[in-house]
Amino acid sequence: MHILVTNDDGVTAPGLLALAQEIRKLGNVTVFAPDKNWSASGHVKTLDRPLRVRETTLADGSSAFASDGAPSDCVALPLLGLTDPVDLVVSGINPYSNIGHDVTYSGTVTAAMEAVISGVPGIAFSVASQDKTDSSPTDYSHAAQVARVVTKKAIAEGLPKGVVLNVNIPYLSVQSIKGLMITRQGLRVYRDALDKRIDPRGHPYYWIGGDAPTGINEDGTDVGALAQGYVSITPLQLDLTNYKAMDVLKKWKF
Amino acid sequence: MHILVTNDDGVTAPGLLALAQEIRKLGNVTVFAPDKNWSASGHVKTLDRPLRVRETTLADGSSAFASDGAPSDCVALPLLGLTDPVDLVVSGINPYSNIGHDVTYSGTVTAAMEAVISGVPGIAFSVASQDKTDSSPTDYSHAAQVARVVTKKAIAEGLPKGVVLNVNIPYLSVQSIKGLMITRQGLRVYRDALDKRIDPRGHPYYWIGGDAPTGINEDGTDVGALAQGYVSITPLQLDLTNYKAMDVLKKWKF
Repeated sequence: MHILVTNDDGVTAPGLLALAQEIRKLGNVTVFAPDKNWSASGHVKTLDRPLRVRETTLADGSSAFASDGAPSDCVALPLLGLTDPVDLVVSGINPYSNIGHDVTYSGTVTAAMEAVISGVPGIAFSVASQDKTDSSPTDYSHAAQVARVVTKKAIAEGLPKGVVLNVNIPYLSVQSIKGLMITRQGLRVYRDALDKRIDPRGHPYYWIGGDAPTGINEDGTDVGALAQGYVSITPLQLDLTNYKAMDVLKKWKF
Repeated sequence: MHILVTNDDGVTAPGLLALAQEIRKLGNVTVFAPDKNWSASGHVKTLDRPLRVRETTLADGSSAFASDGAPSDCVALPLLGLTDPVDLVVSGINPYSNIGHDVTYSGTVTAAMEAVISGVPGIAFSVASQDKTDSSPTDYSHAAQVARVVTKKAIAEGLPKGVVLNVNIPYLSVQSIKGLMITRQGLRVYRDALDKRIDPRGHPYYWIGGDAPTGINEDGTDVGALAQGYVSITPLQLDLTNYKAMDVLKKWKF
């Protein structure tokens, strides 16, 4: 079992190292990640420039590849043959949740999507943000243990064809996590606001500012499970067709 | 009716101008587009840097806004209040089709997704590539007329809540187009290949190369409709949950 480990926060991110260390217990791991942070970068295929790949080492001394491509490029290149054939792609651990509408923005999730489009199973792992009053470094050890358990199960059972697993883990110790829940994608509430500023030369510039997104805390959703202290496991698909809307549109007379 | 017109090919793209000119017949149009090409850039929310916006003019002398943000940023900024309130977002016209799995990569489609996430209807328009042996400039006039007809109908009927319309138009004269078909998202066949090269300093670099994608030409899909000379209109949704797979996963014992 050759498992590719990637992320969207870059090759030096501690969440990547924690994930790689746990996943190594399940198989032969290659770490192949972006050389910079690509958060909220979406699903990218870099066609207008060539990509560089360099060998590097993670903080534990293990070897890894870093590329100037996006997270989905870091999946595409190995799957196109830059490494040995890959059996499974795991992505993360992202330092905040990817729930609700986050999934199409998320580099963590779109890296797993890229795998599934190429016919290789993909799993994305994110851990909920720690409390803002907690200034200690993010502890990924609990989330990484959960990631190993979920990945081991996915290997044993096999993932349904075309399914991307989107896994979100509460920022809690393994003992405090209430369990694992199979969920549907919930609803995010984005609280973005336009923040107009004036630069030292008198010209305007704009931040997408505002508050962190919240969500509709509904039972059975990723948002709800996470808020209640459960790991949410949401199977996603790449067919975005709204079949019910097809029936509505078929009544339109052009 | 205030309609925002954007694209992923940049503010100078002829497909944007053709779309804006036709959509102006339906309402008050603001053009707000990226200042560069963002093809295959995915769904982006630029949070790590501020965005600039400048006023510019299109080739017909009409005014437009250009931003250094991604296509989805060019929707987010107006919807966050940088312009008057927006009733509808139309995106395109992309100079090649966005069908099958293209939809999550596509800046054209993700711009329309960004609108729908913010509660504003969004429609993406793409025209199929012209024949490679045809070296004349791409003629967007037919596709733009189709875009106007579809947009007018969407305004009159209203789009189902949460639905993004993904419209793909054959590269044919209006007279030669066989009709409009409501379709589901089909399957792309990507034909990417790794193209390793050596730079003048002896170091490797990698292109994602290969051939243009094809698709599974199946009845009822966007791929099939387009191949048969029909305009495909696919309603997409932002809930990616695979509900059938939820039942499979619920049997997993952790």
